Amino acid sequence: MIKNDLFLRACKKQPVERTPVWIMRQAGRYLPEYRAVREKADFLTMCRTPELAAEVTIQPVDIIGVDAAIIFSDILVIPEAMGMELEMIESKGPVFHHPVRTDEDGAVLKQIDPAKDLKYVMDAVTLAKRELSGRVPLIGFSGSPWTLLTYMVEGSGMKNFSVVKKLMYNNPLLAHKILDKLAVTVADYLSAKIEAGADAVQIFDTWGGLLSPEDYKEFSLSYISKIISLIKRKQQPVIVFSKGVHQSLEELASSGADVVGLDWTIDIGTVRKTIGEKVALQGNMDPTLLYAPDEKIRDEVKRILGAYGSGSGHVFNLGHGILPDVEPEKAKALVQFVKDESKAFHRKVAEAQRE
Amino acid sequence: MIKNDLFLRACKKQPVERTPVWIMRQAGRYLPEYRAVREKADFLTMCRTPELAAEVTIQPVDIIGVDAAIIFSDILVIPEAMGMELEMIESKGPVFHHPVRTDEDGAVLKQIDPAKDLKYVMDAVTLAKRELSGRVPLIGFSGSPWTLLTYMVEGSGMKNFSVVKKLMYNNPLLAHKILDKLAVTVADYLSAKIEAGADAVQIFDTWGGLLSPEDYKEFSLSYISKIISLIKRKQQPVIVFSKGVHQSLEELASSGADVVGLDWTIDIGTVRKTIGEKVALQGNMDPTLLYAPDEKIRDEVKRILGAYGSGSGHVFNLGHGILPDVEPEKAKALVQFVKDESKAFHRKVAEAQRE
Repeated sequence: MIKNDLFLRACKKQPVERTPVWIMRQAGRYLPEYRAVREKADFLTMCRTPELAAEVTIQPVDIIGVDAAIIFSDILVIPEAMGMELEMIESKGPVFHHPVRTDEDGAVLKQIDPAKDLKYVMDAVTLAKRELSGRVPLIGFSGSPWTLLTYMVEGSGMKNFSVVKKLMYNNPLLAHKILDKLAVTVADYLSAKIEAGADAVQIFDTWGGLLSPEDYKEFSLSYISKIISLIKRKQQPVIVFSKGVHQSLEELASSGADVVGLDWTIDIGTVRKTIGEKVALQGNMDPTLLYAPDEKIRDEVKRILGAYGSGSGHVFNLGHGILPDVEPEKAKALVQFVKDESKAFHRKVAEAQRE
Repeated sequence: MIKNDLFLRACKKQPVERTPVWIMRQAGRYLPEYRAVREKADFLTMCRTPELAAEVTIQPVDIIGVDAAIIFSDILVIPEAMGMELEMIESKGPVFHHPVRTDEDGAVLKQIDPAKDLKYVMDAVTLAKRELSGRVPLIGFSGSPWTLLTYMVEGSGMKNFSVVKKLMYNNPLLAHKILDKLAVTVADYLSAKIEAGADAVQIFDTWGGLLSPEDYKEFSLSYISKIISLIKRKQQPVIVFSKGVHQSLEELASSGADVVGLDWTIDIGTVRKTIGEKVALQGNMDPTLLYAPDEKIRDEVKRILGAYGSGSGHVFNLGHGILPDVEPEKAKALVQFVKDESKAFHRKVAEAQRE
C-alpha cells in the first residue's frame, strides 16, 4: 500500500485533495547529498550499483518533499547493453565511441533481455521500492526509440543533429529496423521495471521536437504507441514526455499514454481544452524560473495551477529537467508552493473527505 | 523597377504565377564561391567591407537561382556598435568578452544612430542593390531585441540560456531597459536599410522559443511590435521569423508583420487556417532535408506547397538557415523544384496572364 498516492490518482484523473508534484532530474547534481554520493563513484557506476542508485533516488523524497520518486538511471543503459561502448564525459555529456552509421553497425546491435541484461536496474528498482516502504510511488523510465537512436547515431556533440537526419533520410530502412528493435526492447525494459516494483513509467522523447510533424509520426510517435501497446502492466500509468511537439499533442494523447508531459512553451490550460478529457497532463514550469526570487516562483505556480483549473488530472512538474546550478532551497520552495496553492483547486474533494 | 518581384507580391498576398523561394543563410559557407571570398577576409571584415558583403549577397541569385537576395551581415553588429567587443571564433561562434550582467553594464551601452554608426551596412545595401540592378528584391534584416539581448547577456556558449533567464527574472527592469533601447535602435537600423535600398526587412527572433508564452509576450513580442510600428517604410514588407513559438503565432500575426516565418515543426496548412487571412507565410522545410536524395526533396516540396494550397501568400523557404555542409547542388535542386511544382497552385493567375 502506498501512503501518499496523490501522484497515481492524478495520473488516472481520480479525485485528489491537492495537486501532486515531482521534478524531472530531481535526483541530480543540484543536491549536495547527491554530489556526496557522486564523489564516491562515477555516473555509470552509480547507475550500476543498486545501493547507490536507490540512495539518490530517495534523497529528493526526504529533502525536497516530492510526491513521487523516479529511479536514478540513464536512458543510454539500453544501447550500452546492446553492445555500444558508452563513456560519460563530464564536460561533454555522453559519448558513444563507435556510433551507428551503417547497416553493419545496425546488424551487430544485440537483441537483449532487459530483465537479465539490465538486471542491475531492476535490482535498483526493487531496492528503492523497499526502502521507500510505501511513502510515495516509484517511477521507472526509458528514452523513446527516436531519442535513443539520436544518441546512438550522433555519437556525441549533436551539432544540428545532422548525422541522424542524414541516416533517416538516406537509409530509412535501417532507421526503422533499429527503431523497431528499440521499441520492443524498451517495452520489455519498462515491463521488467514494473515487475520489479515501479508504480508508473515515463517515456522521455527529448528529441521528438527535432522532427517535422510528418516525420514525428513516422519515426517517433508510431514506436511510442507500439511500446505502450506492448508493456505488461496492471494499474501502472504511462507518462509520455515529448519536448517541443506542440502540433502532435492530439496524436500523442491517442498513443495510449495516461499522461502527456508538456514543456514550458505552451499554456497548460489551452492544452487541457484539447486533450484534457482524454489524458492527464504533467508540467510545465520553465526550469529557469527556479533562478527567480521566491515570490516570482509562487506567482508562476499559481498561474500554472490556475491555467489548468479545477479538478484532477494535473501532475505538477517542470517543463524539463531541473538545472544543476539551482539552489536546493528553490526546489523545496517550489514543492511547498504547489502543495499550498493547489488545495483551492481541489476544494470539493477536500470537503468531501472532511465530512 | 524590379524584374522578378514574385517575392514582394507573395509577401503582400498579391497574385503570383508561381511561389517565390529564397533560403535563410543562402549567402553562406555551403557555397564554394562564398568560401573563396571568406579565405581573403575574416567574417567581421566581410561584414564591414561593402564590396565583399555585396559580392556574397549576390552569389546565390546567380548560382542557386533564388527569387530574393538578403544582404550579407550579422545580427550582432548592433551590440558591437553599441560598444560591446565582439569576436567570431570559428569553432565557438560569436563571443562577447564583456557580457552585460549589471545595471552598470547596461548603462554604458551607447545610444547609436545606425545610419551613421553602421554606415558600412548601409553602403553594402546600396552597393548590392546597384549590382543586382533590379533582378530580384533585396532583403535587409536584424535580430529581435530579445535575441540580441540573449547573446549580449550570455556572452558565449549559452548552456541552457541560464544567464539571460537569471537576469530576466531577477532584474526585469534592466532587461526591459535594454530591450527598449534595442527596439528603438533596431527600428532605426531597419529604416536606414530601407532608405539605403532594401525592398523588405526580416526580424530574426531565433531565441523567442526559449520563453513561456507569457514571457514571450512580455520580453520579445512587445518589442517586435514596437519595432514594426516605428519602422519608416512605404511598401516594404516586414517578415518576422520567431523560431519555436507555435503557441503565439496568432499574436505574432497581429504584430503588424506582413509575413510570419515558420520553422519546420508545424504544418503550414494548419497555420494558414488560423492566420493565413491576416498575413503571408514563409517557410518551412526542415533544413536537414537537403541531405536527402533529390526525389525525397521534391516530395517534400510538393507536400509543403500542397499543405499551403492554392493562391498567393506563400514564400517558400527552409524552416531555419541552410546548414554549412549541404551540397550546393541540393540547394539548386530545391529552388528548381519549387519553381516547377508551384505553378499548379497559381494556375488561374498564369492563365489570366496568357490571355
